[in-house]
Amino acid sequence: MSIFKDNKLQNTPVSELGEFGLIEHITKSFDCKNKSSEKGVGDDAAVLNFSKDKFQLISTDMLVEGVHFDLSYSPLKHLGYKAVAVNVSDICAMNGVATQVTVSIAISNRFSVEAIEELYSGIHLACAKYNIDLVGGDTTSSTSGLVLSISVVGEVNKKKISYRSGAKENDLVVVTGDLGAAYLGLQILKREKEIFLENPGVQPDLQGNDYSLQRQLKAEARVKLIEVLNELKIVPTSMIDVSDGLTSEILHIAKQSDVGITIYEDKLPIDHTTMNLARELNLNPIFCALNGGEDYELLFTISQDHYEKLKKDVDFTIIGHVTDKSEGNNFITNDSSSHPITAQGWDPIINNKKPQEK
Amino acid sequence: MSIFKDNKLQNTPVSELGEFGLIEHITKSFDCKNKSSEKGVGDDAAVLNFSKDKFQLISTDMLVEGVHFDLSYSPLKHLGYKAVAVNVSDICAMNGVATQVTVSIAISNRFSVEAIEELYSGIHLACAKYNIDLVGGDTTSSTSGLVLSISVVGEVNKKKISYRSGAKENDLVVVTGDLGAAYLGLQILKREKEIFLENPGVQPDLQGNDYSLQRQLKAEARVKLIEVLNELKIVPTSMIDVSDGLTSEILHIAKQSDVGITIYEDKLPIDHTTMNLARELNLNPIFCALNGGEDYELLFTISQDHYEKLKKDVDFTIIGHVTDKSEGNNFITNDSSSHPITAQGWDPIINNKKPQEK
Repeated sequence: MSIFKDNKLQNTPVSELGEFGLIEHITKSFDCKNKSSEKGVGDDAAVLNFSKDKFQLISTDMLVEGVHFDLSYSPLKHLGYKAVAVNVSDICAMNGVATQVTVSIAISNRFSVEAIEELYSGIHLACAKYNIDLVGGDTTSSTSGLVLSISVVGEVNKKKISYRSGAKENDLVVVTGDLGAAYLGLQILKREKEIFLENPGVQPDLQGNDYSLQRQLKAEARVKLIEVLNELKIVPTSMIDVSDGLTSEILHIAKQSDVGITIYEDKLPIDHTTMNLARELNLNPIFCALNGGEDYELLFTISQDHYEKLKKDVDFTIIGHVTDKSEGNNFITNDSSSHPITAQGWDPIINNKKPQEK
Repeated sequence: MSIFKDNKLQNTPVSELGEFGLIEHITKSFDCKNKSSEKGVGDDAAVLNFSKDKFQLISTDMLVEGVHFDLSYSPLKHLGYKAVAVNVSDICAMNGVATQVTVSIAISNRFSVEAIEELYSGIHLACAKYNIDLVGGDTTSSTSGLVLSISVVGEVNKKKISYRSGAKENDLVVVTGDLGAAYLGLQILKREKEIFLENPGVQPDLQGNDYSLQRQLKAEARVKLIEVLNELKIVPTSMIDVSDGLTSEILHIAKQSDVGITIYEDKLPIDHTTMNLARELNLNPIFCALNGGEDYELLFTISQDHYEKLKKDVDFTIIGHVTDKSEGNNFITNDSSSHPITAQGWDPIINNKKPQEK
């Protein structure tokens, strides 16, 4: 109810637009007017122009209990660490270096001082790891659960910034590290929570899944690999971090660069423990690698001139190439058949392969 | 419950420390290490050093439905406007100029696309008014109400920055505009909500209280007065914005500047409509001016050399002076008696004057 009667609003559900649609819808009426606003909404970070040789970068994330994390299997310390790390990852995705962070929290009265200390001990660890300073924030009450809002500030040499929009035809598509493990870590945690809820006396069985659990609970930003690219004198023509899933990020780069992208099943970097765990959980490891999300690896494109520099480095995998836009975005499976990459991601069920649990 | 058993946390309620105590407790272990981190937690904004002549400023606020606002009497458009304005006010309080803002929202499914458009129309208005650009944000689901997190970026000439910590003995204490109206506006809104809840057919009676309602619902940042100070070549020795209430802000400046502050009842700027409305609501107008909060005026100290420049300007009121720390913080009432200013604010009840409704 509102005591103000003047607004007769229509009632279109947000689900009709989706998150990306809603953001596009809301922000289309906002233009940047200040000369220090180099680039606003639409990349991993906003780009500010306050100095001669470098751009400043700012990115922000909001994490809501029950939506982005479940405190029954995300320890507060891990949550604090991850919240900072994933924001640093956004700065990496601009080829930048994170320098400061602000942390705001809304907490209900079920959180004690000691619980908040746990959360901040994780934030502290991440700040130390990534050499960034906590410079501000806000602390307030919440009527329900925990809400975290993190903003990170960073810098990048103006000549080295990588937007999502610079991929060129014939560029190589590269991804760092390996994919799919974080998603499987989440499945393990969900499984153990179910078992715990049914049998509260049973201790969680997390043994043997260290890698995927660590990838889920203690995400890391790929700052070292940004340094490696810098040493190799490679400036990606476009870059994004893998937060929502590889296919989703592929589509962002393709759309914003106005190109097509083709990637290959047999090139996808998947750790052997991820392969084994996926099979154990009756999941398709390729599906996990393509759509799982939360890997916080970097997906980028480079000129073919740099091929020799990266081809032998195990931290980087060339998974495809950039085409003309008219060719669309395609995933080539091991049987050499081509499947369009859609906003829904590549799903073995949608693609009429053997149905497996999603 | 947590499926992780390793943490045996104690259970100290946050109320034992209070908000300021909690922030101090949490942030004491965080040091700034990057040379671009000029000043971290503890002022109206963090101060970043990315360029030669100017500092960059960043401040952030989190607003939670049911804690900071009540949508039954805060229209979404007003809420969006105010959320930006109060952040711009933090940049003003550093003697700076706001340039960019990021807005993150968590929304439950009771918010329609049209409701979010209303919110952003207010944000848009504020961006236009203050000449700032919306450059980023995050949009996510919420399990309960609406949560807003705003970060604002600004700039200030390095020679003109005003911290809370620079007040000197014999400086004059100045406040802009007038005090207490925003608090009374809130009381009117609360009263009308009560009446509405008892008699849903009754239209709210808001007539005649335009000024206090506007001060509550459409807070403004004092950017024009920062420009005036600049034109007058006055750099405040210390500055803060009046968000929590005058006494609370007086204590912040006194503590951080290591001085005492004395202010006078007969100097407090109170609009005549505030005086009348306070009496109508059976409230002490002096109490409202001292403790009400949300006026978003600027409280600052200046060298006595600037006295002549400000004494005739109605937008600025000299309300007291800075003393040695040993004299403490005092409020001198019209009968010339001195009352210590405490963290609880100056309350006519606590101070044994005629008891009135708080």
